[in-house]
Formats: sequence, structure tokens, C-alpha cells
Amino acid sequence: MANIGVIGAGSWGTALALLLDKNGHAVTEWSHRPEEAEELSRTREHKSKLPGVKLPETMRFTGDLEEAVTGKEVLIMAVPSTAVRSTAAKIRPYLTKGQIVVDVAKGIEENTLMTLSQQIEEELPDADVAVLSGPSHAEEVGRGLPTSVVVGAKTRETAEYLQGLFMNEVFRVYTSPDMLGMELGGSLKNVIALAAGIADGLGYGDNAKAALITRGIHEISRLGVEMGGAIESFTGLTGVGDLIVTCASVHSRNRKAGYLIGQGRTMQEAMDEVKMVVEGVFSTKAAVKLGKKYGVDMPIVEQVNAVLFEGKDAAEAVNDLMMRSGKPEHTAKPWS
Amino acid sequence: MANIGVIGAGSWGTALALLLDKNGHAVTEWSHRPEEAEELSRTREHKSKLPGVKLPETMRFTGDLEEAVTGKEVLIMAVPSTAVRSTAAKIRPYLTKGQIVVDVAKGIEENTLMTLSQQIEEELPDADVAVLSGPSHAEEVGRGLPTSVVVGAKTRETAEYLQGLFMNEVFRVYTSPDMLGMELGGSLKNVIALAAGIADGLGYGDNAKAALITRGIHEISRLGVEMGGAIESFTGLTGVGDLIVTCASVHSRNRKAGYLIGQGRTMQEAMDEVKMVVEGVFSTKAAVKLGKKYGVDMPIVEQVNAVLFEGKDAAEAVNDLMMRSGKPEHTAKPWS
Repeated sequence: MANIGVIGAGSWGTALALLLDKNGHAVTEWSHRPEEAEELSRTREHKSKLPGVKLPETMRFTGDLEEAVTGKEVLIMAVPSTAVRSTAAKIRPYLTKGQIVVDVAKGIEENTLMTLSQQIEEELPDADVAVLSGPSHAEEVGRGLPTSVVVGAKTRETAEYLQGLFMNEVFRVYTSPDMLGMELGGSLKNVIALAAGIADGLGYGDNAKAALITRGIHEISRLGVEMGGAIESFTGLTGVGDLIVTCASVHSRNRKAGYLIGQGRTMQEAMDEVKMVVEGVFSTKAAVKLGKKYGVDMPIVEQVNAVLFEGKDAAEAVNDLMMRSGKPEHTAKPWS
Repeated sequence: MANIGVIGAGSWGTALALLLDKNGHAVTEWSHRPEEAEELSRTREHKSKLPGVKLPETMRFTGDLEEAVTGKEVLIMAVPSTAVRSTAAKIRPYLTKGQIVVDVAKGIEENTLMTLSQQIEEELPDADVAVLSGPSHAEEVGRGLPTSVVVGAKTRETAEYLQGLFMNEVFRVYTSPDMLGMELGGSLKNVIALAAGIADGLGYGDNAKAALITRGIHEISRLGVEMGGAIESFTGLTGVGDLIVTCASVHSRNRKAGYLIGQGRTMQEAMDEVKMVVEGVFSTKAAVKLGKKYGVDMPIVEQVNAVLFEGKDAAEAVNDLMMRSGKPEHTAKPWS
């Protein structure tokens, strides 16, 4: 049994808090809105984010960050990507050396091009930072449906400790030392989810979507390997696995924003209609910058960028992708 | 302009024949039923396989195999996997040395464990055998929706020649020398499609399906690499790409048979209800044999095999997969 603080009371934080509670750990979930913490504690249901899922009396909720951090062996960082750095900074006064902080959000900071775990490390140099990622709709985890994810950490010891905390008969956890590959794949895949949404919005079919997913992972992994990640992470659960679940979901904001753009809306109109932060829009900017910095050709990312920020017609962008000169699929084997 | 014979008048053969006709080639499509060839020629529509798709007057149909083969630079082999060897044997008397034969079906012969191109080579030693594969519902290709595939051949020359024949603004073609990897991925992925169907039938969600697809490709690629294929083919269009399109489709026989089994039917009941050959059932037997022969651990394949042939309860099989001892996702990078 471990003492665990879950920082953030969105759908994913709450689903993971519930999972850890079921596994017998003492869980305290923090909301940045004390009134939300009070309501969760009283109603034992997260009506807006995980409707119908009962939150047991053993789960504690608080609006007090110090209470959520102090005395916890593990902190789960489950705030939106854009709030990770500022929240980590707020945690600093209460953190003790060696405390494990597991980031479960995804994103790349546009100006610094840093991953979320890198931002947390900068703000919390005393923490043992880890990540958890994979194909995992919070709603399904909340309902106890089978899910497989990966925990990335710097040491095998930390990774296997976290694997033991999370794993149960419906939640399978793999370990990985490749935090960078996991985080790059998890963030950059949102650009491809936008592209897949655009294809859906244009009325294209499953062939086009499967090709975009596969070739998208191919180009993301070329960049990621150049940056130091392992290709197996991009073709694994945190890369293509997470992308498949995103593209299959009618709830994904990235897919939905892409869909609206494919139907003819501008990027701003699509953002307004989705009414939430569309992570892939930021990731597209970061991906273009990273591609240039590392000298990697990223045809799908470039076309998504042109559609989002240069007003390029979506059908023309797909056409330009299809009509590039004929290429080998990969260069792993020589011709005989 | 090339003279092309399409051997087989199913949905995929007909969609490819139409594509090649649109690209300006002289196409003759053969049906093993002369009356079907006559009907296609008269009605200019394949009512059962590609309803609503107009087949232009420039396309020729024949029930005479000699006519379909003689004087053709390229033959497209588009018969069901179980008919490939016998059809190749029938072609032998008419084949001229160096004629290109492109297999577009998928499968592994249960007794010999040979791929389809290997069977064609054995029956037609004078042919220049190639393969075409990737995420491609015939219906979508027939309707002109964007599709990307891979052509595999022994020489770059043949691969690029075929790329030039097929490629147009809605049909993108990559080349590959890795025919073996393409064919193994294309066949073995049907086992994983069965598993994904079973998960759907059990009422599991997108998380479970994405994990099965990703971990399924992981275990298939371990086997395929051991056999001499390139991992990039398994994580590419002919492997994971084709698997994604299969798992997304309500028309896939493999997915549908799996779904019925997940709902509690026996393998035989599911086969009877689908009323067509379910390739993944044969591929499962072949995959188990190959895993043993090459000493590769294949947990998903083994569970599918137990459900299909040993009457194992499907939910118990999933549970056994989830509860194996915790593992690393991959071993590409060392721990620090």
C-alpha cells in the first residue's frame, strides 16, 4: 500500500485515482478548484468528466496542494499540458527529495520544445520524474474495461515499482526506459490525429485513414529516432497504439477539430466549435520546428501545418501528399 | 500503356482492373465462371461485389484463361488464397518467360508454411513474381477514394515498373524489396484481427482493441524478423496499416468471425454464420506452427488458437493475456 497524490481532477486523473484506490492504495486527489474537491467528496461522482462512475469513500479529495503532496510516495501529474510547468512550480515548496512524480499528460512546449517530463524536471529538480502513457480513454478505464499502458522511468527500479502499483487484472502495465520516445510519440501523434480527422471530414474512407496513421507514425519515428528515442516506442503502445485509439474516438478533440477543418471550417472556427484546447494544433507548430532543427522531412506534418496556419485547402493538401514522387516504403533491406 | 491480365473477378481484382483501365492500360479480367465474365461484359457492373461502380467499355472480360494470360506483360493474381496454387498451375501452359505475376491475395499454406508468392514461384518458375498489399478495401478503391499500398518485387526495376502502372492521384504506391515481410505481415495480421473481433464481441472498448493491434503487430514482427523479414514492413502499410483497416471494418470476415466468438459462438458456428472462408482461422494454425519452428513466444496467437480450437472461454483468454507477469514494452534501450 502506497500513499499517492493525484494532481488534477479531470477525467484521466480521476480514472487513475479510482484505479489506484481499487488496487488498495491511499489516494488523495487534488483539484485546483476547492469547490470541485468538496463536491467530489460529497457526491462521490465526477458528473461532468466520468458520469455514472462511483468514487468510493476511501478516495480523498482536496483543494489544498500541500495536503495532496505531503507524505505521498508518488504524485500523479494529471493537469492539462499547458498547466504542467506552472503546477510543478507550485508543488516545489512541498516536495521532498526523491519523491516520484508521474506525468500522465502529453505535449511539447512550443518555445522551448521541451517535453512535459523535462519541464517538470526543470521545475522540480529533486523529483524522480516518470511518465505513464498508452491507448487509454479515461471513460473506459473508469468503467474497468481492459487497458494496456507503458510506464517510463529513468531506473528500472522506479519503473517496476510503478508497474506494481498500477497493474491489475484489467490494467496491464509495461515498463520502458525510453521516456523521450514515449513522450515524443504521445505528443506528435496528435498532429496525425488532426490529419486523420481532416481526411474523415473530406469524406475519405478507412484506406486513407489507415495510410495516414501508418505513414504518420513512420515520419514521427524518423524524427524521434533522430532526437534519441527508440523506434519501438513509436511503433508501440505510446505511439501508434495511442494514435489508433485517438483516431477511433468520436470524443477526441484532435480528431474532431480535424474533421471540422476537413468539412471546410478554418482552424479558428474549428477551435471555437470544439470549445477546448486542441493539443495537436500546438504540437503541429512544435513538430515543424523540430523537423527543421533535426533535418527530417515530414510531409504529413507540413501539409497539416499549411492547412492550419496558411489557409491551404484540405483536399489540395491530401492531393499533394498522394502525388509526391513514388518512393520506397522503407530502406531497411537492399534490392537483390 | 501495358497489356494486363487480371486473374480473378472478385471485388479486389475488379477494383484493381478498373484502376488500371483508368490509368490507360489494356485490361482483360478473367473469371473462373464464363457466365460471370459474360454478365460483367454485358451489364458493366459487378452487382454482388462492387455494386454501383461502372465498369467502362474499355475493360474486357473473359472466361478463357489462355486469353487472359497470352500477350500480357503483367498478370494480377486476384483469386482467394486457397485457389492460388491451383490457378497458378493452370496458368503454366500459357506463361512466357519473364512475365510478371503480381499476387494481391494473402495467406500461408498450412502444410508447407509457404507464402502465396512462394507457391506461385513453385508452380510458375518462369514468372517474375511480385506482390501488392496494404490497407485497401476494394469498395473504396472502386469508388476512387485515396489509398496507399506497397508493391514488393525482387528487383527495383520490376517494383518501379509496377509502381508506375498503378500509381495515380488517388492511389499512392510505395516500393519494397521485402516481399517476405509484406506477405507474413499481411497473413498473420488476420489472427490479430480475429483477436480484436473477439474483444469487440466481449464488449470491450477501444483501449483493448488498440492494445491488441499494437502488441499483436509486436509479436508478429518478432516472428517475421526471425524468419528474415524487415521490422519496418510489419510496422508499415502491409502490416499494422492493413490490420487497422481490417479492425475498423464491419465487413471484415476475420473481425466478424471474432466478434461472434466473443459473443459466445463456437468457431464452427461463427464460420457457418459468416458463410465465407475466414482466412485468419488458417493463419492461426500456421502462426502457431511458425512460432514453434522459430522459437518465438506468441501470447496473443496462442490465446486465439486456444479459443478457436480448444474451446477456451474468450474472456478467460483475455484475462490470461492481461495477467501475464509484468514485462518491458521492448528491449531497444538499456536502463540508465
